[in-house]
Amino acid sequence: MSLEKLIRPKSIAIVGVTDKLGFGRSAALSIVKSKETDRVYYVNPKREELFGRKCYKTIQEVPEVVDCVVVCTPRNVVPSVLKDSGELGTKAAVVYASGFAEEGTEEGTDLENQLIEISNTYDMKILGPNCMGLLNCIDKVNLWAGGSKWDLDTKKPGIGIVGQSGFITAEIVSSDYFNISYGFSTGNGNIVTLEDAVDFLVDDDYASVIAIYLEGLKNPQKFIDALKRAAQKRKPVIILKSGRSEKGAISAASHTGNLAGSSKAFESIFEKYGVISVENLEQFMCLAQAFSVLDGNLPANSNFAAINFSGGENTICADLAEENGVELAEISSATKEEMKKYLPGFATPKNPLDATTALFHEKDMIVGLLHTFEKDDSVGFTMVGANIRDEENEMHETLCKAVSEAREQGLKKPVFAVPTLEGNRYLDYRTRLEDNQVPIMSSVGTTFTCFNKMAKFIDYDYSKRTLEFKAVKKRESNNVVALSELDSKIEMKKYGVPVPGQGNAKSIDELDEILKYIKYPVVLKINSSEILHKSDVGGVKIGIKNRDEAVDAYNEILTNVKKAKPDANIDGILVQEMVESGIEIIIGITNDDQFGPLLLVGLGGVFVEVFKDTTLYPLPINHDEAIMMLKKLKSFKLLNGYRGSEPCDIDALADMMVKLGKYAYENKDEVKEIDLNPVFVYPKGKGVCAVDALIVKYK
Amino acid sequence: MSLEKLIRPKSIAIVGVTDKLGFGRSAALSIVKSKETDRVYYVNPKREELFGRKCYKTIQEVPEVVDCVVVCTPRNVVPSVLKDSGELGTKAAVVYASGFAEEGTEEGTDLENQLIEISNTYDMKILGPNCMGLLNCIDKVNLWAGGSKWDLDTKKPGIGIVGQSGFITAEIVSSDYFNISYGFSTGNGNIVTLEDAVDFLVDDDYASVIAIYLEGLKNPQKFIDALKRAAQKRKPVIILKSGRSEKGAISAASHTGNLAGSSKAFESIFEKYGVISVENLEQFMCLAQAFSVLDGNLPANSNFAAINFSGGENTICADLAEENGVELAEISSATKEEMKKYLPGFATPKNPLDATTALFHEKDMIVGLLHTFEKDDSVGFTMVGANIRDEENEMHETLCKAVSEAREQGLKKPVFAVPTLEGNRYLDYRTRLEDNQVPIMSSVGTTFTCFNKMAKFIDYDYSKRTLEFKAVKKRESNNVVALSELDSKIEMKKYGVPVPGQGNAKSIDELDEILKYIKYPVVLKINSSEILHKSDVGGVKIGIKNRDEAVDAYNEILTNVKKAKPDANIDGILVQEMVESGIEIIIGITNDDQFGPLLLVGLGGVFVEVFKDTTLYPLPINHDEAIMMLKKLKSFKLLNGYRGSEPCDIDALADMMVKLGKYAYENKDEVKEIDLNPVFVYPKGKGVCAVDALIVKYK
Repeated sequence: MSLEKLIRPKSIAIVGVTDKLGFGRSAALSIVKSKETDRVYYVNPKREELFGRKCYKTIQEVPEVVDCVVVCTPRNVVPSVLKDSGELGTKAAVVYASGFAEEGTEEGTDLENQLIEISNTYDMKILGPNCMGLLNCIDKVNLWAGGSKWDLDTKKPGIGIVGQSGFITAEIVSSDYFNISYGFSTGNGNIVTLEDAVDFLVDDDYASVIAIYLEGLKNPQKFIDALKRAAQKRKPVIILKSGRSEKGAISAASHTGNLAGSSKAFESIFEKYGVISVENLEQFMCLAQAFSVLDGNLPANSNFAAINFSGGENTICADLAEENGVELAEISSATKEEMKKYLPGFATPKNPLDATTALFHEKDMIVGLLHTFEKDDSVGFTMVGANIRDEENEMHETLCKAVSEAREQGLKKPVFAVPTLEGNRYLDYRTRLEDNQVPIMSSVGTTFTCFNKMAKFIDYDYSKRTLEFKAVKKRESNNVVALSELDSKIEMKKYGVPVPGQGNAKSIDELDEILKYIKYPVVLKINSSEILHKSDVGGVKIGIKNRDEAVDAYNEILTNVKKAKPDANIDGILVQEMVESGIEIIIGITNDDQFGPLLLVGLGGVFVEVFKDTTLYPLPINHDEAIMMLKKLKSFKLLNGYRGSEPCDIDALADMMVKLGKYAYENKDEVKEIDLNPVFVYPKGKGVCAVDALIVKYK
Repeated sequence: MSLEKLIRPKSIAIVGVTDKLGFGRSAALSIVKSKETDRVYYVNPKREELFGRKCYKTIQEVPEVVDCVVVCTPRNVVPSVLKDSGELGTKAAVVYASGFAEEGTEEGTDLENQLIEISNTYDMKILGPNCMGLLNCIDKVNLWAGGSKWDLDTKKPGIGIVGQSGFITAEIVSSDYFNISYGFSTGNGNIVTLEDAVDFLVDDDYASVIAIYLEGLKNPQKFIDALKRAAQKRKPVIILKSGRSEKGAISAASHTGNLAGSSKAFESIFEKYGVISVENLEQFMCLAQAFSVLDGNLPANSNFAAINFSGGENTICADLAEENGVELAEISSATKEEMKKYLPGFATPKNPLDATTALFHEKDMIVGLLHTFEKDDSVGFTMVGANIRDEENEMHETLCKAVSEAREQGLKKPVFAVPTLEGNRYLDYRTRLEDNQVPIMSSVGTTFTCFNKMAKFIDYDYSKRTLEFKAVKKRESNNVVALSELDSKIEMKKYGVPVPGQGNAKSIDELDEILKYIKYPVVLKINSSEILHKSDVGGVKIGIKNRDEAVDAYNEILTNVKKAKPDANIDGILVQEMVESGIEIIIGITNDDQFGPLLLVGLGGVFVEVFKDTTLYPLPINHDEAIMMLKKLKSFKLLNGYRGSEPCDIDALADMMVKLGKYAYENKDEVKEIDLNPVFVYPKGKGVCAVDALIVKYK
């Protein structure tokens, strides 16, 4: 969907311009702040002119067919205005009014459907209803309701933002503190969707970073296709997904279903496509602005050098780094030697560095240190602890001068200013630092969380991931049927998933046939869907070591069962290898309505739901990705040779995950859930075995 | 130790006043900003006058015996100045100079020892060396090196701060943003210690909250005695303990020469005494300032009502609450009904509340909502989402007016302003809000962390804790000896810790004696410190069901062992009950050098070190505290009846913890470590059993 006429209209008609407070007034005043204001036309049948500009009676009276019509009327008039515009040939529209599908009423839904129909009939890209509009700071197009006070000429380019909350998006795009290229408030988002906006931003070079406030998706396929292209371009995508705390997750038939909620599904998608997922608006905009300021000049590695003004700050800095999983660079002895040239005699050259209060006034020291770290490959970037307490601040002044001088002298590596106490970021200093590509972080806690997220983005390598995605078909019904353990294992075996040798014998001949290809000892169990407590009726015999014992057990079970349950339908006698126990792992599949099958792996047994030590990942999955998943588990320690015990067969486990994944992906329109639980993992070279299996399919 | 003359000196001599940049200049200019400046005397043998004030040649020449001498000289002169002052009768001193014990040199240590000796000889309270001084905003005493620009008359009372980093403390006490009653920079802290300062602040009514930047302790007994009194007074104590990480710890050691104690031991002390432990300076001061603004008017419960300006903010608010373990209040239907009176027609009354952009300008709405929440007992406090973007901000103006009006009308419950996007807190708005007892939080991420910490403080009940503390004696040596399993269990049994029935038989008579009081089945094992692999020599017999089998086993073991190891010394035959297995728990004791014995409990078995699902608590411990410890474990789910299984005997487990605790506390100068691992926990009413025990004692 090309949004050209919506995003870069050359001519605009505003229908419903008024001088009363509201959309009609604020939009009129905003839009004339766009670049080509001579081709902006006001429409109001009752007024000759408004704000010094002629009013046309109808859209038809406007002297040209405009690229975009902005509708500021009450909701009931919206369809006719759009229809008229469509008839004329207009291909884009913005509708601010609320009271459509979001209301949940029949009337509102009906109105929204009329808009969808008009869009289809006239190929018209309609942004809204129930939205705040669109801001294009690159081409100076201001279609934002309420943006009349903004000066687009002073906006620096950088962030492309898409928000499903109009007010939140408005707060952000209106702030002087952020570099904004484009802002989209998508409102109900049924015509021009959030996905359309993201799709546009991925390919637009003026958006160096994409920030998305996300509540829900309309088109997972388009969304993921856009994420995939962003990953391949290494364009940062930051998402604040709200509604993570959804309580009352639907109880599923399997462990896997219970462990994989919808917010975990989103997180798994974010991980696969290298999306930076944040928890609150502060992280959201601190990171977005930082990426915008860096403008592609990312740290080569995520280890950092820290310059602080006191030993106390240093200690806190080291604590926070460790607690947030980021690493101080191990600087070389040559670096330490060179640092001495710039430091006061009593300061010790190390990382983190206590530069003493010399940091307040010794510009040359800072410049020298930055150049020193520039030459040390262990340092990805430098952070300077800068507590910006007052509007006039010596430390800050010194830092501004130092980074400016160092950049002029060719300093390339990223530098971050980090307020160690208070988060106040006065605009003047901020601008001066940012002009030298120094992001100033919002607060110390957020800084280290953001460093961690940035480190993950730097380390993310799309070439190691299977980025292919095909959305599942919309399902007719959600009715399901569970396969028996035997049938589940047969399916698994077809895909090469190791299961204990097994078979169902309806006669001694069939028993002999099965015994040819499975290993002793074996267990025999009655196979009947009508007998739940098999042991109670003498329906189980374990530890069978040879053919004679097997035949005896076969006959004995049949005799026992016929005596205890004479009327039960018997499907046969299940014969299974008894396998040695290993480390218990669970591997499962859950089929997400939006993202299709997701693979879960975690510690099995009684601890599955106590520690929830599991991780989730979208299919398809390759061997590398399977290993990455395992490494994320706390219990990876157990698999990797714990306290002198032998390392487990991690490759075989990963191989099983890949095979299960292949099965689930190829059958994604039929399979709802799978549990392989427990999977026994044996020592290295000895493989794995799915001892129990449960496949749940859609009917 | 009374610090009266140090904290509230009526007369002060400053030795080493100079007009050159440095302590001698800045202290002279600071101190004359104190209240009673006519009794401040400058001492400099080479000058007649400085800064318009007479200089005396020596301390002896000063016309009165001053309460406090402030020494600004280089380090080598310090001892003689202090000695002269001590001879005259001065009882307090501040020493800024560095180059003492913290340097780690023989010279520095020698100088520090001279100061300690002078302090003892003349009963002189010396703050420093290597410190930034002392600030008493209540009595307007400014002994801070570098505080010459501060106006103590504008400082509002509130926080008493003690810092082991001079620069960090200086940054805080100098900020206009914080309410400061007292500030102490304790420097090397060997004479006037951090503990002395904390002790003073606990009892001083002008310090409504105590904030401590802590690297290490000198006197755990005094420290904990002070924490205990603070807990009983419900005075909030906020501690930023630095050196939590491995790298941080190294940095702390090199900073003040203090050894950082194990950070988990500190955390356990903080938990017991209700200390609010924070991770960074932003949380530290955000909470300290909030408590200062609340000034004792704490929320009655920790559930809150939230007023935001958009649905998006609401969703984020609910996410953050859940993720940070704080709860939105379940407001009553009467409250919802009343909310409608104040809300715009299209807004839905609920919690969190989307008040729409009416929040920007509808003062009366806010006032009405605050009064409505006041009447609902489910609401402990209200937070208002206030994004303070610009210095002039309509939303902020409206909020200031609303809280002012509501307070005038008698509103009592706490209200917090929370910046949902950026953390800028302009001083003017901040002051206006704080004047109405509305703390304004520093940033959204920090806010919810702080709410969680505040909730814990509100819920903390000192009367349920055993606050008694007696420090362990300083140990002569750290050499240890391990008791045998039998001896360990005998010790445990004396204190009522359930262990399997057991005994050591040296004859059949002794065997009979043991069998009288233990239950079958039993196991017999050779008891010899010279035989490690008991089974290999036929030294173990299990599953013994009666006396005859026991006698046979006894004889058989002796025969086997005498044959295999004819020269081994045999202590007897160990007879033990064979116990059923239960849920595996570990209970242990570790004797901390500072805090004495700490009790650890956690999930036992192979997962102990994988999940580290353990919790630590200082002794002594009562039953309530033991239950609290257990409830903190993730694996508490397993104990409490997991997925339909029977609940375990949690009371018996807690009882065992209390008994082990009593043993370890009563023997704290002998016991170094204890492991009861595994402890089997049985279903409710069936008790617990320490299957293995190991006690390690100091030699």
